Amino acid sequence: MTRKHLFEHIVSKQSYLCVGLDSDIHLIPKHLLKEEDPIFEFNRQIIDATAEYCVAYKPNTAFYEAMGVKGWQTLQRTVEYIPGNMLTIADAKRGDIGNTASLYARAFFSEMDFDAITIAPYMGEDSVKPFLEFENKWVILLALTSNPGSADFQMQQLADGEYLFERVLQKSQAWASADRMMYVVGATQDGLISRVRNLAPDHFLLVPGIGAQGGNLEAVSQWGMNKQCGLLVNSSRGIQYASSGEDFAEAARKAAKAMQEEMTIYLDKYLG
Amino acid sequence: MTRKHLFEHIVSKQSYLCVGLDSDIHLIPKHLLKEEDPIFEFNRQIIDATAEYCVAYKPNTAFYEAMGVKGWQTLQRTVEYIPGNMLTIADAKRGDIGNTASLYARAFFSEMDFDAITIAPYMGEDSVKPFLEFENKWVILLALTSNPGSADFQMQQLADGEYLFERVLQKSQAWASADRMMYVVGATQDGLISRVRNLAPDHFLLVPGIGAQGGNLEAVSQWGMNKQCGLLVNSSRGIQYASSGEDFAEAARKAAKAMQEEMTIYLDKYLG
Repeated sequence: MTRKHLFEHIVSKQSYLCVGLDSDIHLIPKHLLKEEDPIFEFNRQIIDATAEYCVAYKPNTAFYEAMGVKGWQTLQRTVEYIPGNMLTIADAKRGDIGNTASLYARAFFSEMDFDAITIAPYMGEDSVKPFLEFENKWVILLALTSNPGSADFQMQQLADGEYLFERVLQKSQAWASADRMMYVVGATQDGLISRVRNLAPDHFLLVPGIGAQGGNLEAVSQWGMNKQCGLLVNSSRGIQYASSGEDFAEAARKAAKAMQEEMTIYLDKYLG
Repeated sequence: MTRKHLFEHIVSKQSYLCVGLDSDIHLIPKHLLKEEDPIFEFNRQIIDATAEYCVAYKPNTAFYEAMGVKGWQTLQRTVEYIPGNMLTIADAKRGDIGNTASLYARAFFSEMDFDAITIAPYMGEDSVKPFLEFENKWVILLALTSNPGSADFQMQQLADGEYLFERVLQKSQAWASADRMMYVVGATQDGLISRVRNLAPDHFLLVPGIGAQGGNLEAVSQWGMNKQCGLLVNSSRGIQYASSGEDFAEAARKAAKAMQEEMTIYLDKYLG
């Protein structure tokens, strides 16, 4: 998917919502457990209920790997089920040396047909480049994550005064343009979204941490939006587990709709 | 597996060799392609041929994920096939926020019965801790990798003059002792092994980059060995692909034996 198509989709839906598919067998409604593939059935209903209000879906691979071989099958079925106009993101946070990175790229871009994958930057350029060789596919590089541990290394100050996550933003822009790379920037990092936007004015930012983790949608939109929106705001638990009963899909629909309606306001207010 | 057991195994085998199982369908001998599961058959023969000379096996998950669902099955069969006295390492380089890290831990330590997993440090403490909750299982944290991209961030100097990889070594020692954590330190980083050993005197180091990537076994042993050996030196391509013909297993056996014999000398010379 191109950046232009993504932006057109955002404008037409009036939404920059990404729905996380972090589907846990212990958290899905009990009545689904009688299904042959309960997680797929849960995902299918969540996708049907929310597709009108979002532009992207992001399964986190951990939830599927934890189920072994069967989980890998469920992930494949899920990505095939997601409508073709959606950006599909494998939240895999991979990162390995060049020849191995090529194999991960093959796994997520060829074996499975994801549009984008999240990548950890610690191993540097040759761990990222192989993912950029696939046309119309995206690398979403971890810059500043939403968890407490982001303070341990990402927020370490380098010799020239920059934070490590700022160095990641700067160095990696030499590897790919805003048409091929995005960044993960956690919404829980107050005030830092605008520093990121300064360093990477054109890139899309994938923003986790709204809702369950405490991030604020208006602040992210105000400081993070650029002329092509440049934001994909993810919500996982707040939508997937809006209800634990038989009405879970309807509750997910309402939660996604509420976020989309709020986003319409911010698109009107902050789109440059 | 405990550190004590690992050391005993090293002493009895006179080897600190880890055999990488980076098994690529495009590189294995052609006559195996007629098998029902060629990669498993390749692994099985490599394991049978080398088990006498090594103490650990390390499949890199990328090679299996690149084959989709079938690859995941092959990985599971492979780890089940590896003899119980070996340390089994999932070279997965995972790293995600706490609740998600727990699921990766479940995937590799419960669904599959690996003894250890490699973890990327970028997301900090809460991305590592869930792996430490499994008894007798190991976290192997990336410190200084063997690829060119290690210069991009790992070798960045922090405000107090330390390199980032040194900060990783220092900070992470508060999370777990040398009985639960090891570090990945590439053999291609001349002179840096002794700096690592200084900062982490007791920890085992998993050392890739010997052979194909140009690292030197004697230098690594001289500067890296501690009183409990403290080294696991990995070789993947040099053993797995020692021959591309029907004699591949015999060639792998010879290559592993040659490394083990060299290791005997260094154990005698450098074991503190």
